[in-house]
Amino acid sequence: MNGSVRDAALLCQQAAVQVAGLSTDAKNSLLRSMADALDAQTTTILAANAKDMQAAREKGLGEAMLDRLALDEGRVHGIAEALRQVAELPDPVGQVTRSERSSKGFTIERVRVPLGVIAMIYEARPNVTADAAALCLKAGNGVILRGGSEAIRSNQAIAACLRGALREAGLSEHALMLLDDLSREAMLELMQLSDIVDLIIPRGGEGLIRFVTEHARVPVIKHYKGVCHLYVDAHADLDKALDILIDGKVSRPSACNALETLLVHADVAAVFLPRAAKALQQRGVELLGDQRSCLLCPGMAPANDDDFAAEFLSLKLTVGVVDSLEEALAHIRRYGSDHTEVIATEDPEVAERFVHALRSAVVMVNTSSRFSDGGELGLGAEIGISTTRLHAYGPMGAEALTIERFVLRGEGQVRHAESRISTAAPKLTD
Amino acid sequence: MNGSVRDAALLCQQAAVQVAGLSTDAKNSLLRSMADALDAQTTTILAANAKDMQAAREKGLGEAMLDRLALDEGRVHGIAEALRQVAELPDPVGQVTRSERSSKGFTIERVRVPLGVIAMIYEARPNVTADAAALCLKAGNGVILRGGSEAIRSNQAIAACLRGALREAGLSEHALMLLDDLSREAMLELMQLSDIVDLIIPRGGEGLIRFVTEHARVPVIKHYKGVCHLYVDAHADLDKALDILIDGKVSRPSACNALETLLVHADVAAVFLPRAAKALQQRGVELLGDQRSCLLCPGMAPANDDDFAAEFLSLKLTVGVVDSLEEALAHIRRYGSDHTEVIATEDPEVAERFVHALRSAVVMVNTSSRFSDGGELGLGAEIGISTTRLHAYGPMGAEALTIERFVLRGEGQVRHAESRISTAAPKLTD
Repeated sequence: MNGSVRDAALLCQQAAVQVAGLSTDAKNSLLRSMADALDAQTTTILAANAKDMQAAREKGLGEAMLDRLALDEGRVHGIAEALRQVAELPDPVGQVTRSERSSKGFTIERVRVPLGVIAMIYEARPNVTADAAALCLKAGNGVILRGGSEAIRSNQAIAACLRGALREAGLSEHALMLLDDLSREAMLELMQLSDIVDLIIPRGGEGLIRFVTEHARVPVIKHYKGVCHLYVDAHADLDKALDILIDGKVSRPSACNALETLLVHADVAAVFLPRAAKALQQRGVELLGDQRSCLLCPGMAPANDDDFAAEFLSLKLTVGVVDSLEEALAHIRRYGSDHTEVIATEDPEVAERFVHALRSAVVMVNTSSRFSDGGELGLGAEIGISTTRLHAYGPMGAEALTIERFVLRGEGQVRHAESRISTAAPKLTD
Repeated sequence: MNGSVRDAALLCQQAAVQVAGLSTDAKNSLLRSMADALDAQTTTILAANAKDMQAAREKGLGEAMLDRLALDEGRVHGIAEALRQVAELPDPVGQVTRSERSSKGFTIERVRVPLGVIAMIYEARPNVTADAAALCLKAGNGVILRGGSEAIRSNQAIAACLRGALREAGLSEHALMLLDDLSREAMLELMQLSDIVDLIIPRGGEGLIRFVTEHARVPVIKHYKGVCHLYVDAHADLDKALDILIDGKVSRPSACNALETLLVHADVAAVFLPRAAKALQQRGVELLGDQRSCLLCPGMAPANDDDFAAEFLSLKLTVGVVDSLEEALAHIRRYGSDHTEVIATEDPEVAERFVHALRSAVVMVNTSSRFSDGGELGLGAEIGISTTRLHAYGPMGAEALTIERFVLRGEGQVRHAESRISTAAPKLTD
């Protein structure tokens, strides 16, 4: 993005009009050319990534961060394959979601149109650059990306491939902008372009989300933290509950859909908790519990309020014993982040009370929180998981990057009969 | 609303949890009791309104404003009837919009849930107090209302009826808050309660919308102006076009779906414009045209850029002659407000190009812009017409005051097979 942020965003807005008009086939073949370009320029991308990695090591970034930043041939090919998968997804643009005929005789359709220009602000991982661009373009939008500074060279190399494919398709490369200026001022300017940018999606930690929420004049859909709960009810199948617990905490602790808190009904706590604690500890999970949990599990450290509100993103779990469903619900309402909550119970009535009482984006009965993911929930791919209860809530795919509007087709209908004057006047059309 | 704005909003948030859990029958009978209360307390409401009217006259408000503010027995009954109609509408809460089975065996449902707490900031008309409250409550939300200062006594009297009905139904009256403190500071505080208020809907003029957009930290859906266009194509049925024009401009010029601009293709301008100008002028419409229009219609004054961007809300119309569909589209993109645009044409190809090229909330072929209304478009009632291209675009009914979320029901499914440890361990449940 050269020149001022505003000028660049204006170019993107103009290019977005072109993207909005593309046929499904044109968009899909564009995405496939982008994938081919990534495969063909793997060497260039890896060279750029090597420089990012070197700088990151010099800055002393931790191993987890380094791993998220690192690319190799397989990972670049994976990014290309993800673009090919987005090409296979249904095109939301132009979908007629409802169609009816008015009593006045005209037809009323609800039709999906692109949002316009979407800005995405995200942290380290370079694959998000390609994923977000692909989903936004598939949904007919222009996209402005602002990635983390650690991945700047990798992001530039990836964006160069994607923009090259736009040019080769005879389209404006401005449909995809990568913000080079990573200053706070440039980000602020971007967030306030309410006449150009239609949506801003911040995806990252508390600091980023707060910064964007406080300063944006553009509509924001937050992809915020997941403090996900598993509540093991008095009528749970404890075997299922244990599987769901292990999967939720251990299978990928760095994911936002990993479990952070286990709540157990007092009736089964003495049986379930020691067994669960042992299985978790065997897998390296550190446990922080309330008083009653600690009494049942000797190896457990005491948890405080901050622990119960924390998204650990690591092998840590908070544990609490509750006397009722209501106490579990109150805990989740107090400490949860509206992301994903799970109940393990064989009592359908308790399950439904849990589902209806909570307003989190994803609520589950007897299933792992790790399924709270666009791919697993049938969206094909996701741009992230919205924790904003507006427009899209939970995993967001291409469809969530469009909006329904109204199209009416009639034969001259008017609302007030007195307006129908033409028949009284001399005919002009012949 | 007593005490601080934040305290009152917190009470509303607590009450909203109760409203979210109400059955459809409970909500509908609540709305009918509210209607009965308005009918029963008509005298009190009219007395309050008389004081508002007196103060407004002393302040020198114009006749149009006074008419919007004025209530009489018939109007109060009309407000009550509108509540009864909202009671008849389908309940969006709990609607399952999609249902599928994952390949892993669990079911995935998309289910509508309330947004939570909705704040509405609006100008003069007291009927909005009841309409907005009814739609928000029907959709299971708590509602905070901040009406215009001119209508404060009328709004308080109406809100007192509605809150009384909440109490009599054994519910917390805090589910409906009317902000008494009309200071700028109180409004600012309300707009920044991003941990309590889920959506803010400003409905009014440019000053109000800009104030809210610039200061809100709560998500905003604007109900902004309607600069609606009619484009009469070279292949229009000019009789239909004339009816649509008269209906759009004359039947209710103060509505946001009234026409503000007529664009005519040069091929038919010489035939259509003089006839249209005469019919409009006979109905008291003042015409402001571009150079070519003025040459064709002697009584027309020249229009400037500001005129073409204006929402007159009165018997004024701007007129332009264009040489092509593209020129018409460019004009609408430049001056339009994304509200409602109409094309009159008998050429289906031109009609489709018009529909697809524009991204306004409502796009029409051969039909009056005055149909851009929740009631006419099958929503039953509307809280307004969104000009924000996010969440809801165009007329917003009860459904648009809810959000789809995910509900999964399984039998112990996990994402990673290695997490399934329970079968290897001793059975605990028997």
